[in-house]
Amino acid sequence: MNGFACKRSISVDDFFFDGLSRPGHTNNTSRASVKLTTVLNITGLNTLGVSMGRIDFAPGGINPPHTHPRATEIVFVLKGELDVAFITTDNKLYSKSIKTGEVFVFPRGLIHFQRNNGNVPAAAITAFNSQLPGTQRVASALFASSPSVANNVLGKAFQLRTKEVKKIKSRLAHNK
Amino acid sequence: MNGFACKRSISVDDFFFDGLSRPGHTNNTSRASVKLTTVLNITGLNTLGVSMGRIDFAPGGINPPHTHPRATEIVFVLKGELDVAFITTDNKLYSKSIKTGEVFVFPRGLIHFQRNNGNVPAAAITAFNSQLPGTQRVASALFASSPSVANNVLGKAFQLRTKEVKKIKSRLAHNK
Amino acid sequence: MNGFACKRSISVDDFFFDGLSRPGHTNNTSRASVKLTTVLNITGLNTLGVSMGRIDFAPGGINPPHTHPRATEIVFVLKGELDVAFITTDNKLYSKSIKTGEVFVFPRGLIHFQRNNGNVPAAAITAFNSQLPGTQRVASALFASSPSVANNVLGKAFQLRTKEVKKIKSRLAHNK
Amino acid sequence: MNGFACKRSISVDDFFFDGLSRPGHTNNTSRASVKLTTVLNITGLNTLGVSMGRIDFAPGGINPPHTHPRATEIVFVLKGELDVAFITTDNKLYSKSIKTGEVFVFPRGLIHFQRNNGNVPAAAITAFNSQLPGTQRVASALFASSPSVANNVLGKAFQLRTKEVKKIKSRLAHNK
Amino acid sequence: MNGFACKRSISVDDFFFDGLSRPGHTNNTSRASVKLTTVLNITGLNTLGVSMGRIDFAPGGINPPHTHPRATEIVFVLKGELDVAFITTDNKLYSKSIKTGEVFVFPRGLIHFQRNNGNVPAAAITAFNSQLPGTQRVASALFASSPSVANNVLGKAFQLRTKEVKKIKSRLAHNK
Amino acid sequence: MNGFACKRSISVDDFFFDGLSRPGHTNNTSRASVKLTTVLNITGLNTLGVSMGRIDFAPGGINPPHTHPRATEIVFVLKGELDVAFITTDNKLYSKSIKTGEVFVFPRGLIHFQRNNGNVPAAAITAFNSQLPGTQRVASALFASSPSVANNVLGKAFQLRTKEVKKIKSRLAHNK
Repeated sequence: MNGFACKRSISVDDFFFDGLSRPGHTNNTSRASVKLTTVLNITGLNTLGVSMGRIDFAPGGINPPHTHPRATEIVFVLKGELDVAFITTDNKLYSKSIKTGEVFVFPRGLIHFQRNNGNVPAAAITAFNSQLPGTQRVASALFASSPSVANNVLGKAFQLRTKEVKKIKSRLAHNK
Repeated sequence: MNGFACKRSISVDDFFFDGLSRPGHTNNTSRASVKLTTVLNITGLNTLGVSMGRIDFAPGGINPPHTHPRATEIVFVLKGELDVAFITTDNKLYSKSIKTGEVFVFPRGLIHFQRNNGNVPAAAITAFNSQLPGTQRVASALFASSPSVANNVLGKAFQLRTKEVKKIKSRLAHNK
Repeated sequence: MNGFACKRSISVDDFFFDGLSRPGHTNNTSRASVKLTTVLNITGLNTLGVSMGRIDFAPGGINPPHTHPRATEIVFVLKGELDVAFITTDNKLYSKSIKTGEVFVFPRGLIHFQRNNGNVPAAAITAFNSQLPGTQRVASALFASSPSVANNVLGKAFQLRTKEVKKIKSRLAHNK
Repeated sequence: MNGFACKRSISVDDFFFDGLSRPGHTNNTSRASVKLTTVLNITGLNTLGVSMGRIDFAPGGINPPHTHPRATEIVFVLKGELDVAFITTDNKLYSKSIKTGEVFVFPRGLIHFQRNNGNVPAAAITAFNSQLPGTQRVASALFASSPSVANNVLGKAFQLRTKEVKKIKSRLAHNK
Repeated sequence: MNGFACKRSISVDDFFFDGLSRPGHTNNTSRASVKLTTVLNITGLNTLGVSMGRIDFAPGGINPPHTHPRATEIVFVLKGELDVAFITTDNKLYSKSIKTGEVFVFPRGLIHFQRNNGNVPAAAITAFNSQLPGTQRVASALFASSPSVANNVLGKAFQLRTKEVKKIKSRLAHNK
Repeated sequence: MNGFACKRSISVDDFFFDGLSRPGHTNNTSRASVKLTTVLNITGLNTLGVSMGRIDFAPGGINPPHTHPRATEIVFVLKGELDVAFITTDNKLYSKSIKTGEVFVFPRGLIHFQRNNGNVPAAAITAFNSQLPGTQRVASALFASSPSVANNVLGKAFQLRTKEVKKIKSRLAHNK
């Protein structure tokens, strides 16, 4: 299922993680921070099918459009207020402003994002039904991959001229 | 999988729930409150395989030993400090005191519990890899079911005399 | 999925087990015996998702309340007559007396038990939809774990005074 | 998952079946009888992923080569002695004589069969990890289907002349 | 699992589809055509977990970056030659030119695309391990959804000024 | 799930296979050729749950009755015309003549076959929802296994005299 062997001896700390207790740094381009706790740092999660994350947002911070290839996500607002949204395969946008303590669901594999439109920091706890959900940020996957996606693919997809594609690539390369 | 039909038309509120935003009442026997948000109140969760909950604890409050028959649970301490524990099928107890922001895992189907040994209220957010995990509180399932479990079954299992079984039944009947 | 590696070479005995052919000893506290055949003794069961068991009961014998964290159980009465029951997450008890050749189902993860109320020995064959269903006996998990569950947790859950908790712990420690 | 709606109200008899308690009639061509209890007669099995069966054999009786398209099978010999076998996708035959109380596994989807080579009746209890495993008897599926499989398909597959194919079809039509 | 009820009576045409036999029209912006056959047009696929598609490409045609939220895809080149690629969650691009008859895999949920860099038409057959894999085209999901994704979300994600975001939105609105 | 360990380093060729690009040899007894690409030759398929195959048929060629124990199959006619059929567990035959570009489904685990009744070669691409579906040819499994299936089992199942069973065994032994 996953390539992680079961351990011979386990201890209580195989089921514990303290890395989500403090907010992440948000002094970056997106003014947001994402931390995940998966089978990679809670080894006891192996075969158990869940994981968690914490997202912190400075005012104006954005967790940019992304997908989790192997999981549905459910989010609980820890503090502040967030604009949350997902987009269906029919290109319908479902969005809502959610407040501290409110819960929202991002269905398996769909593009979604969160934004702090308030004047104060915000934070959220997220949970996934996979021990290793994976995260694919759409913009950086397409414009900052290594090697690079061909300009004409991106040009056709986004209706951009080559010069415009190169500009986005250049900007994202500096701001990953 | 579950007996819930898919809806013909969906709205953003099918993916939203605000019932976890306020602490539950803890002026009860266990001095704790559990609220869940499952496919029963977030209809958009149908087939998506996740759900969430919120547990509030007064000082000394206990979420008594219970299982979730269909899910693993992962818990994040929202405030305060909790003693958490699960018991394996080998009767090994894995327990730990976890603080605000720390994370712990209760493997699928195993008996577990949480307790607030601090002097201030505590709270936790929990997530499950099932849209309807179910919760079975061990003590009330055994001693306060309807109809009642036979006295000699409980007597043999817990090494109690009939009189002692009846006493526990009577107490739990008044404090469900 | 499970931590068992596939074998390089297999033989017919990897799909065979003779350990359920004789009744287990029932001269113990519960006057019953449970034997399981899982991937641990039929290595060919790896990834195949089934296992079996045999339960023998002296007259008055009880297979005390327990759960299988990872499986539904279906039982066939081999001889004699059994009182069987499971308890739902709503604390409803579903119980029935079943005779030789009759079949009963214990849904995934729910607490259940069997009892021989007859005057002659009884036996049952059980099957599970997991190669390693696990068994958690509720009373011994809670009152005879190692390390021990805190007295106040058990006291609150079962409405017992500390002295009463200690008495049950002491009795179960001697009769595991 | 399966087209069976969940019931609004359940009773204990939704988890019970008494149709396996008596041996089936074996005065037929194969001198054997197969009875299954699935979600079709235990409605409570819906979504629970197990089922059971009982096979009775007169001396010389055979449960002819068949598959279960959706399940692994595990078998327990109730009485007598059986020759059991399955064939792998590499055309390896794994066979064994198993006695009362012994257990054998037929991996998911593989052709298998049982035979009573003894002088006394035999019987077995089987379990499946599906609520509706399905049974496909190979000979009657191929030579007694409706409509009929084309003669040249069967002729090529089994290296038979058309006349020989027709003879088998005719015999099986009379002895389904 | 999916909201499709099982049919009472089935016919052979419930397992058949002829809509992939002819190339789709490629005189559009992307100069490519995608047709899928899922449980929506092969009703017999219900619960069976597979589906298929056909993609036709004019010279220079592109199946733009997209994901399938619920499936892995495997592709077989029917004619011509294709540049195929997927991007991992680590922003690694795996790409290859594949010829008629060659096979390539796009892992579950990851962004991928195909391009016909040749001078002649190309076509591919694709298969999915879901009866309804879903397709989300990244560019149109983000820049042509209804309602529209907020400009500042797209601006931050792609490092675009609002004016640039609006230009892409406008172009994609005219070329969906 | 499968016994294949995850690789430490992957390359694009772990997701690629060129072995289906040429027709297989059809100068054999069945006048047909089957090639599969599974996790055995596309290592990147590990845990991804799909695989593919190519079947080539000379005029009159037959892919004889077989099952895939672990997968549903969906087939696309690459060229020519095929008679396809599967048989249900009720011994109903569902058959159809399908032409180039048409699609047909063989439900999980059921016996099925394809035949080229035309005067020109035919070919098909098939896909499976398993990384290793397995293939069991019914006639050779039963009459050409090693060791051999007992004559009386085959005799009873197919209503053949021992002499007839031996004749089929002998023919199939020479034409595997």
